Amino acid sequence: MNEFDLIRDVFGQQAKALAKQSENNSTIICGIGDDAAVISPPTNQQFVTCTDTLISGRHFPESTDAFSVGYKAVAVNLSDIAAMGAVPHSILLALSLPQKLKDNKDWLVEFAKGLFACCEQFGVQLIGGDTTKSDVLTISITAFGFAEKCVYRHGAKVGDLVAVTGNIGSAAYVLQQILAGQKGEHDYVLNTPSPRVRMGQWLSTQNIASSMMDISDGLLQDLGHICEASQVSVRLDLENIPAHEMLHTLAAEEILAYQLSGGDDYELLFTFAQNKLPTLLSCHLPTAITVIGQVTQKSHSLVELFYKNQPYHYNQHGYLHF
Amino acid sequence: MNEFDLIRDVFGQQAKALAKQSENNSTIICGIGDDAAVISPPTNQQFVTCTDTLISGRHFPESTDAFSVGYKAVAVNLSDIAAMGAVPHSILLALSLPQKLKDNKDWLVEFAKGLFACCEQFGVQLIGGDTTKSDVLTISITAFGFAEKCVYRHGAKVGDLVAVTGNIGSAAYVLQQILAGQKGEHDYVLNTPSPRVRMGQWLSTQNIASSMMDISDGLLQDLGHICEASQVSVRLDLENIPAHEMLHTLAAEEILAYQLSGGDDYELLFTFAQNKLPTLLSCHLPTAITVIGQVTQKSHSLVELFYKNQPYHYNQHGYLHF
Repeated sequence: MNEFDLIRDVFGQQAKALAKQSENNSTIICGIGDDAAVISPPTNQQFVTCTDTLISGRHFPESTDAFSVGYKAVAVNLSDIAAMGAVPHSILLALSLPQKLKDNKDWLVEFAKGLFACCEQFGVQLIGGDTTKSDVLTISITAFGFAEKCVYRHGAKVGDLVAVTGNIGSAAYVLQQILAGQKGEHDYVLNTPSPRVRMGQWLSTQNIASSMMDISDGLLQDLGHICEASQVSVRLDLENIPAHEMLHTLAAEEILAYQLSGGDDYELLFTFAQNKLPTLLSCHLPTAITVIGQVTQKSHSLVELFYKNQPYHYNQHGYLHF
Repeated sequence: MNEFDLIRDVFGQQAKALAKQSENNSTIICGIGDDAAVISPPTNQQFVTCTDTLISGRHFPESTDAFSVGYKAVAVNLSDIAAMGAVPHSILLALSLPQKLKDNKDWLVEFAKGLFACCEQFGVQLIGGDTTKSDVLTISITAFGFAEKCVYRHGAKVGDLVAVTGNIGSAAYVLQQILAGQKGEHDYVLNTPSPRVRMGQWLSTQNIASSMMDISDGLLQDLGHICEASQVSVRLDLENIPAHEMLHTLAAEEILAYQLSGGDDYELLFTFAQNKLPTLLSCHLPTAITVIGQVTQKSHSLVELFYKNQPYHYNQHGYLHF
């Protein structure tokens, strides 16, 4: 099977099937099969794009099943689109495969199933890509979305409240369990994360979020990015950071380490003016949120940690790819 | 240096400097530094996007200098944009680096110089990306362009003439020389190819090309793609395929092998109605073109080879990544 057969057989047909049932179909002038994909952008919409690479053994354990690898590769990209408040539209797939996977049709089919499962869930189409051989399984996806306006990292104002969607720290805990050889019922948290697409759109279109990003490299490091971009600091009330019940048996310090420095949460981190709180409390939200801190004047420390109103000393850094 | 410092230091500043002098600046709402890049699409333009991956030792010799690697990674993507007849606009860079390169600031600076040199030449901006560590140097670039209308692979009509820009087969010959340990004055042909951006736009806006693609995997294989997409065959007159003078000392069969099956040409391959020939002959073209064949009714063989009007038997396949 050569490169072209591979793309056509495993991805092309499913991509076409998905395209037929998609609302985005009319905006996609040309998908897989030419030198480039062609989109007719909806009027008065900004075009949002990002790229994220997953490498086997680095961004997911080598033992991860093919379905999860495909699903996650899409999900982490849609999480970035969600963090801008945009509606995801389509993806390009750059897939670099070791020989043993290239020859393993079962693996390819499962990978494609996972990839298209995430695409279908969010109305996203695969419109093109590139397949190459490599010693290391490497998946670079570029995602596209549209929005009337976006929410950036730089809009946080002093006095704004800081909130997160869902729970924080679960994926890092699950990863540690898997690496220790313990597979469990919560592996899906790490393997097939849920990008907060509807919540991101809601926070943007309702003019709630003043700044927003997704948490992929650990809460502390990512919150630092909002602080830097917005030229503010944040007081973080650690006891308020929501934790999944699977963490409840751990000591508080251990939970906090997963929450502050663990990666792969793919929850939204956002700030909002206090006068928006009644709206947030009165609405039926797509995802639960928790207020975890407040924006303060820029000070020496970007993020000031408090645990039950006492300063908390913490030295670990967020997850770094290097 | 962590992932964020790396992007900021080596790429961020140059990207910003380039942005300031660019005509595209007003359409880029948000570049590097947020969860995603945001573009405000020009009115009544189609949005064109593609992705191409280069892997060290597979798409370029490991000995290739960093400047060339950076330049080529952009050029091969812009070649796809050119092949649609679109104006290139911007790129995303997904860079996976081995530890030894990540620690080699000189390499990174040279790589960035090459990348930005190609960007600057074609008015293209780096608007975002992702940096990860990998055992294998892997560069996935996604390119964006705009066009009022595009030229596809599927528009070739029976009777159309088949033409190429520039020379064919040079890059494959140079690669073979380099792999044999002979560096020469023509290495630039392989290392820093010239995407035919102006020519692609001209062929599209002047309504010349009925179908078009770029030649990256060998003329024979790529011509087959146009035939398949257009449901036609092509009679190829082999003695007309243009060769760089560095090939002139070789035997005709050897030249043809490089031309038909060699990769990395990044010339445009296009078809056009015969009544457009006077326009082509009377204009000062951005790039020289040569007519190499004619579109015929679909027959058993997609591409029929003739050498000086005699059928020519050739068994080698085009370059396959697998």
